[in-house]
Amino acid sequence: MKCRLWFPWWGETNLQQLKEEEQDMSEKTSLHMTLDEFRRHGKAVVDWVADYYEKIESFPVLSRVRPGEIRASLPPEPPARGEAFETILEDVGKILLPGITHWQSPNFFAFFPANASGPAILGELLSAGLGVQGMLWATSPACTELETHVLDWLVDMLGLPAKFKSHGEGGGVIQDSASSAALCALLAARERATECSSNERGLDAALTAYASSQTHSSVEKAVKIAGLGARNLRTVEVDGRFAMRPEALARRIDEDRREGRVPCFVCATVGTTSSNAIDPLQEIGPICREQGLWLHVDAAMSGTAALCPEFRHIHAGLEFADSYCFNPHKWMFTNFDCDCFYVADRAALIRTLSILPEYLRNQATESGAVIDYRDWGVSLGRRFRSLKLWFVIRHYGVEGLRRHIREHVRLAQEFAHRVDEADRFELAVPPPLNLVCFRHVGGDRINERLLERLNRSGRIYLTHTKLDGKHTLRFCVGQTHTEERHVRRAWELIQETAVEVEKDTGCAQP
Amino acid sequence: MKCRLWFPWWGETNLQQLKEEEQDMSEKTSLHMTLDEFRRHGKAVVDWVADYYEKIESFPVLSRVRPGEIRASLPPEPPARGEAFETILEDVGKILLPGITHWQSPNFFAFFPANASGPAILGELLSAGLGVQGMLWATSPACTELETHVLDWLVDMLGLPAKFKSHGEGGGVIQDSASSAALCALLAARERATECSSNERGLDAALTAYASSQTHSSVEKAVKIAGLGARNLRTVEVDGRFAMRPEALARRIDEDRREGRVPCFVCATVGTTSSNAIDPLQEIGPICREQGLWLHVDAAMSGTAALCPEFRHIHAGLEFADSYCFNPHKWMFTNFDCDCFYVADRAALIRTLSILPEYLRNQATESGAVIDYRDWGVSLGRRFRSLKLWFVIRHYGVEGLRRHIREHVRLAQEFAHRVDEADRFELAVPPPLNLVCFRHVGGDRINERLLERLNRSGRIYLTHTKLDGKHTLRFCVGQTHTEERHVRRAWELIQETAVEVEKDTGCAQP
Repeated sequence: MKCRLWFPWWGETNLQQLKEEEQDMSEKTSLHMTLDEFRRHGKAVVDWVADYYEKIESFPVLSRVRPGEIRASLPPEPPARGEAFETILEDVGKILLPGITHWQSPNFFAFFPANASGPAILGELLSAGLGVQGMLWATSPACTELETHVLDWLVDMLGLPAKFKSHGEGGGVIQDSASSAALCALLAARERATECSSNERGLDAALTAYASSQTHSSVEKAVKIAGLGARNLRTVEVDGRFAMRPEALARRIDEDRREGRVPCFVCATVGTTSSNAIDPLQEIGPICREQGLWLHVDAAMSGTAALCPEFRHIHAGLEFADSYCFNPHKWMFTNFDCDCFYVADRAALIRTLSILPEYLRNQATESGAVIDYRDWGVSLGRRFRSLKLWFVIRHYGVEGLRRHIREHVRLAQEFAHRVDEADRFELAVPPPLNLVCFRHVGGDRINERLLERLNRSGRIYLTHTKLDGKHTLRFCVGQTHTEERHVRRAWELIQETAVEVEKDTGCAQP
Repeated sequence: MKCRLWFPWWGETNLQQLKEEEQDMSEKTSLHMTLDEFRRHGKAVVDWVADYYEKIESFPVLSRVRPGEIRASLPPEPPARGEAFETILEDVGKILLPGITHWQSPNFFAFFPANASGPAILGELLSAGLGVQGMLWATSPACTELETHVLDWLVDMLGLPAKFKSHGEGGGVIQDSASSAALCALLAARERATECSSNERGLDAALTAYASSQTHSSVEKAVKIAGLGARNLRTVEVDGRFAMRPEALARRIDEDRREGRVPCFVCATVGTTSSNAIDPLQEIGPICREQGLWLHVDAAMSGTAALCPEFRHIHAGLEFADSYCFNPHKWMFTNFDCDCFYVADRAALIRTLSILPEYLRNQATESGAVIDYRDWGVSLGRRFRSLKLWFVIRHYGVEGLRRHIREHVRLAQEFAHRVDEADRFELAVPPPLNLVCFRHVGGDRINERLLERLNRSGRIYLTHTKLDGKHTLRFCVGQTHTEERHVRRAWELIQETAVEVEKDTGCAQP
């Protein structure tokens, strides 16, 4: 031994001692699950999941536990010794299940869906099993190349502008969520507007960003994170259908320029969270182009509809966009997380997010012939998320996906017809796709009670929003297993419950 | 019908038409995988994964494909019609496997590990099957409460300061990666330093942040994202063991204050990526406390070592930290992504990242009695990631986890002893835990060739770094299934290959 190099407390004696301690501890040398055990337990989990889906309609959709109830069932201390896998799996049903809100229930009509499917779940299992990292091309070439390839497929599948494909200057990447996609887009916009100086010198210009009053809250979050400040996010007025008014956007940009600010970013939405409004890209786009602003288009849920040619009009004007995202984890049967984020100029994104420490240097990167997705997002580490997307696309085929999306839209439109025909209800806004915003005509209080009672029944789960200042119920059809019977039953339940609530509140039936 | 509300192109006719189109398409009404098929295919995937682990040592650890090779094997167009699951699974082996770098191989000694285990993989499967969203407590109470509970467990398991537990003012949350944790910590620091005005007004103060020259590149990335600018990240000098020099930190803070800047954030590292250096928190902490700087401690890989009481000295001084993270997805048998991020003052974090649009309002949130993890990170949507962590802790038990961590450290230390005893090699730095940095004494060129040849052999995979300007090999022991025989064989291979490289380069054996 040339020198005593390790920490003072460490040395031959310790090495020996550690080895002995271990041998003492038990006769079993490894506590890892053996492959035989993995096969056995793995199959039990597969069956558990299938059993869960078989029983899913028997559970209250919205969990009924009170705050702290789940924690109270968990032991305060972690186990010192390992436990049998059977016990653990049993506890999932016993302890956790009552605390689950069943997003995969066909009676889930709340928020936006986060639908999963057999092929997606198995893709996730395989991804976890392979356990590779996709931060660099070299750390698993298949992980990077499949991602690029499947994202190129989706450009064609949705009829998106070809500039988002990887063979030119653009390209796609999977982000965890539309929130992260919006942040990355804003950062690239910030760098472009400051001629790449914000990254280096810090933000000193008074940059402004634009979104409608209906834009998802993630844009405000991104504006805060990127250091622009929430007050520099302009809330652009919307029209009667809650879509951004292009002339209002143009006016606000002008105002900011006159006052010496630097407009840099517009987020337009295809299918807002609140009411599924579709901002007019064909008019917003030319304004951004003329003014040199980065246009990001967030089509988180509704983008999937563009699988069907008859719904592609939602993307009219997308050729003006610098970036775009939609979430197969919302409405394309691919379990969370899977947001597809596209940029027209990948160099702008990479310049913004690139880092290259010595320990990540490698020949493939230096050759310039590969994509290193580490430079396309916040996180360095990356799961093999394209696997589940590939499984889904191959399992359903493009036509199969279309069929299910069409069916969801049809069911939502049928539901909207019923609402529109009923005297006690009104549509808050025309439903363009699969989200129906409606309300009881009796005012906020009755709608609040109606919602609460419906959700408490456990039979369906809806959420609400405010439109024109009025409490409005949202009914979103997008769960994988939602069929005609679920939507019809939901409508019956809503009507019956409305009658009950009318009685309770003394509200006369209209 | 009260009015024609939908989009002009839409109406009764279209509804009818859609239904007919569908009926035409095929006799099968649903293309979803049935539960029987799911059981069958799911079990096949479980077996596929087990078979993969059985064969894993027969694959070259580092993939040998050339850029573009995987893509070239994939069809340019997505399938119009669905394909059989058997075909898809077969393609995983045929097309993708050659493009996999085997992070789960026991001969993987590169980077930091991203180790997985049976219980973690099955936890991920279950999480995908349940498919719930953990953005709000209400969207699945069990998802939030199990996360809080298990993160509290880990505070005790690692002997972390009690202030990080949720019953007081702190708390833990799972992030995707240490990169995101560093970003969240920096944002909270930025808000604290600007008295919560950056979020609102945008960044206008000249804030500065501090990290050592060895700090992970994610901190530079965070500084750019948060708008501080890379030039306002001070690179603090390190000592002979690559640990941050506290007096250099103090000096740089003083300099910045004198020049009117606002120091706000220090990132100290417990186990740097390059060489596993441990920054002296006991000295850095009081400086941060005195100067009112946010101290974030990144223990991404090495934090796990604190499971073993004899290694807890790495965290000495952690009581001064405002935030801390470590990654069970690196060295605690929990597949990516699973970074445990703790804050001492959760209100500071929530203030920074909170958003509350109408469509997310709910009674539980308004009662203030629950945690909504949406406000603890960038992304709104969240997977049920605590499930796999819970599975891992329960499967191994605390003692079982300790045993395997000890064994990894022992193997790395044995390897270091061999290196130290060999004439042609030298240790670059004393290895405190499971990462050994070493080099051939013949200079950079021979080390580069040695590394390339070792990795090309496919028998092991190592990566490199630069220490004191010298090309240095990194040997990190942390893969779940790495045993004594793998480390010994790796050492033999390194020696044999060194002899070959010496011959090739004409370098005389020392």
